[in-house]
Amino acid sequence: MKGFVFHGPGHSSWEDVPDPGLKDPTDAVVRVDTVTICGTDLHILKGDVPEVRPGTVLGHEAVGEVVETGADVRTVRPGDRVLISCITACGRCAYCRKAMYGQCRGGGGWILGHLIDGTQAEYVRVPHADLSVHALSGTLGGKDAVLLADIFPTAYEVGVLNGRVRPGDTVAVVGVGPIGLAAIATARLLAPERIVAVDLAAARLEAARQLGADAVADAREAPEQLIADLTDGMGADVVIEAVGVPESFEMCTRMVRPGGHVANVGVHGRPATLHLEELWIKNVTITTGLVDTHSTPTLLRMAAAGRLSTSQLVTHTFPLDLMEEAYDVFGQAADTGALKVVLGGEQHDVVALPAA
Amino acid sequence: MKGFVFHGPGHSSWEDVPDPGLKDPTDAVVRVDTVTICGTDLHILKGDVPEVRPGTVLGHEAVGEVVETGADVRTVRPGDRVLISCITACGRCAYCRKAMYGQCRGGGGWILGHLIDGTQAEYVRVPHADLSVHALSGTLGGKDAVLLADIFPTAYEVGVLNGRVRPGDTVAVVGVGPIGLAAIATARLLAPERIVAVDLAAARLEAARQLGADAVADAREAPEQLIADLTDGMGADVVIEAVGVPESFEMCTRMVRPGGHVANVGVHGRPATLHLEELWIKNVTITTGLVDTHSTPTLLRMAAAGRLSTSQLVTHTFPLDLMEEAYDVFGQAADTGALKVVLGGEQHDVVALPAA
Repeated sequence: MKGFVFHGPGHSSWEDVPDPGLKDPTDAVVRVDTVTICGTDLHILKGDVPEVRPGTVLGHEAVGEVVETGADVRTVRPGDRVLISCITACGRCAYCRKAMYGQCRGGGGWILGHLIDGTQAEYVRVPHADLSVHALSGTLGGKDAVLLADIFPTAYEVGVLNGRVRPGDTVAVVGVGPIGLAAIATARLLAPERIVAVDLAAARLEAARQLGADAVADAREAPEQLIADLTDGMGADVVIEAVGVPESFEMCTRMVRPGGHVANVGVHGRPATLHLEELWIKNVTITTGLVDTHSTPTLLRMAAAGRLSTSQLVTHTFPLDLMEEAYDVFGQAADTGALKVVLGGEQHDVVALPAA
Repeated sequence: MKGFVFHGPGHSSWEDVPDPGLKDPTDAVVRVDTVTICGTDLHILKGDVPEVRPGTVLGHEAVGEVVETGADVRTVRPGDRVLISCITACGRCAYCRKAMYGQCRGGGGWILGHLIDGTQAEYVRVPHADLSVHALSGTLGGKDAVLLADIFPTAYEVGVLNGRVRPGDTVAVVGVGPIGLAAIATARLLAPERIVAVDLAAARLEAARQLGADAVADAREAPEQLIADLTDGMGADVVIEAVGVPESFEMCTRMVRPGGHVANVGVHGRPATLHLEELWIKNVTITTGLVDTHSTPTLLRMAAAGRLSTSQLVTHTFPLDLMEEAYDVFGQAADTGALKVVLGGEQHDVVALPAA
C-alpha cells in the first residue's frame, strides 16, 4: 500500500510501505477513506518531536472502514465505518479508568503516527480498537467526522471544558488557527456572553468572526485593554491559549480576571515566565492538557444531530495520493489561507446529509 | 490606646495611637483580646508590601469583644465575642456575591493592617462588620480561634480545596512553616492516603510529623524521587506550595502526577519559570489565590466540635504589650523554633474547653 513516511527532519514522502496486519488480538485494521493533517505533523517534519523514528507513517486522524479485527475486539467488526481517534486507550490502566485516555499507561495515549505507524496511508493498524475507534452514524460525512478525531475534542476538552466556560462568561481565545477556531465553535455550546478572538493575522480573525467570535483583536494592539474595557476592568472569565509560545501564554495570564481560568491548549517547545509575584493573589487557575477524547462520542452525536458544524474549517480537499501537495498547502497556510486540509473521500456508503 | 505601628522598612514600635471610632454605619469597633503575627507582617516590616503606608497599625487577625457598632450592623452587637477575619467583605459587589471575598471590590478584601489600621492594638475599627467578623462559640478559646482568622482558612481554601484533595490522594506539602502545617492539618479532613512534608528544616519536618505527615523529605535530597517511589512513578495527586520562592514552585510542578493539581499558597515576590514544554501534555492544574475566608464559619464549627485542633501550632504566648518581643521571637523562627506566636488572652468570659 501507499503511506506518508517521515524520513527525519525535512524529509518525507508518499511511498510504498508494507500492508499492516493484526499483531495483537485487540487490534483492528482499518481502510482509510478520509484523513487530515495536524499542526503536530508539521512539528514532526521539522524534527520537533524527536521520539518519532524515521520510517514511521504519520497521521493520527482518519475515517475509514474496518477490514479485519482481532479475536478480542468486541465493539466493531469488519464492514463498520469508524472514526479513528488520535488517542488509543487500553481501557484497563489507572488513567483509562479515570477517562484520562491521553495519559494511558497500558500502551495507548497518542501513539498513532508518533510511536507506531499512523493514518496517513491506505490502511492502518489500530491497537486497542474497542476504545480507540468510534462507530459512525451513517449520516455524518467523512469531512465532518474526521475533524472529531483530534482538533474538536482537543479544543473542547483542553480549552473549553478545562477552562470551565459557563453561560454568561467572557471568553478570550488567543490564537485562532484551526484549534482556536474549534475552541470558538465549541465554546458557543456553553452560551458565553461574548467570545473575543485574538490573533496576528487578519484572515484568521475574519474566520473567527464567521465561526462566532463577537469581537476580534490584533495581538499587537494591546488586546488586554479591549478585554478590560469589555468587562468593567475585571478581565476575561476564561482565556484559551491556542498558539504555543511563551509570549502568548503570558498574554493570557494578563487577560484573565481574578478567579478566572487560563486553559492552555498550545503545544509548547519553550518554558514561559509565570508572574507569580502578580498572580499569587489573583485566584487564577491554569490548566494544561493532552486531549483524552472522552468527549468524542458526545461531539459525534452533536455533529450528527446538526448541533455542531465542523467541516466549515476545511478550506482544501485532495485525493489521498496527493498527500505531499496537501502538506505543502497546509504547511504554507499564511500564503494559501489553509485552515484544515482533508484528503480522500467516501468509499463506504454514507447517507446524504440534509441540505443546511 | 497602644498599637503596633509600621514606620517604614525596618522601623516599627508599640506606641500610643488614637483610639479608633466608628466612621461608617457598617463599622464595628472591637476590643482586641487575642492577636497573632503573620508571616506577611514580617514582609511588611521589610518593605516588601509598599502599599502599606508608614503610620499604619499592623495586624489582620484577632479575637475580641465588640464595643460599638454602626447603625447598619445587624449580625453582631456590643458585648459579642468575635473573630476578626483577615478579609473584610462588603457583601454586595460582584466578587462577594460569588463568595470570593478576598477579591472584594466594595472596599474590602485584605485591608486591615494593610490599607487601614489593623488588629495589633488594643482596639480596632472593622469596616463592613456584618461579613467581616464571626460570632464565636463560647467554648472556643482565643488561642484556638485566632488562628482561624487567616492561617487555617488560607491553608484550607487556597491549598487543600483549590488543590482538590480527595480521599485516597497522595498530597505533598512543600514548605511546612505555619501555613504548610495548617495545610497538613486540614488536608487530613479529606482522608488522603498519605501526606508527604518537604522542607529544609529538620525541626519543621518533625512538627509536620506530629501534625499528621506520613512521610517527610529534605528538600535538598530529591524529594521528587521519594514521591515517585511512593506512587508507582506517577507523582502526587496534589502538591501544595507553601514557601513562596520560584525554586519551590518549580519543584512542585515536577512532583505532580499527570492530571494532578499544584495549589500555590506561597506569597511570591519574583516570577517563576513554568516549564510548559514539559507540562503542556500533562493535564496539570495550577491554582493561585488569596484566601476568601468563605470556609471560616465551617472551620470554627469544626474547631468548636473538637474535630480540628489549631492551637498546637502556637509555640509562644505573650501579653499584648510585649508586641515588640513577640515580633523578635517570630521573626527569628530559625533560632527560636517559633511556629505561631499569640499575644493577649481572654478578657471575655469563655467556657472552659473540656480536657483533650
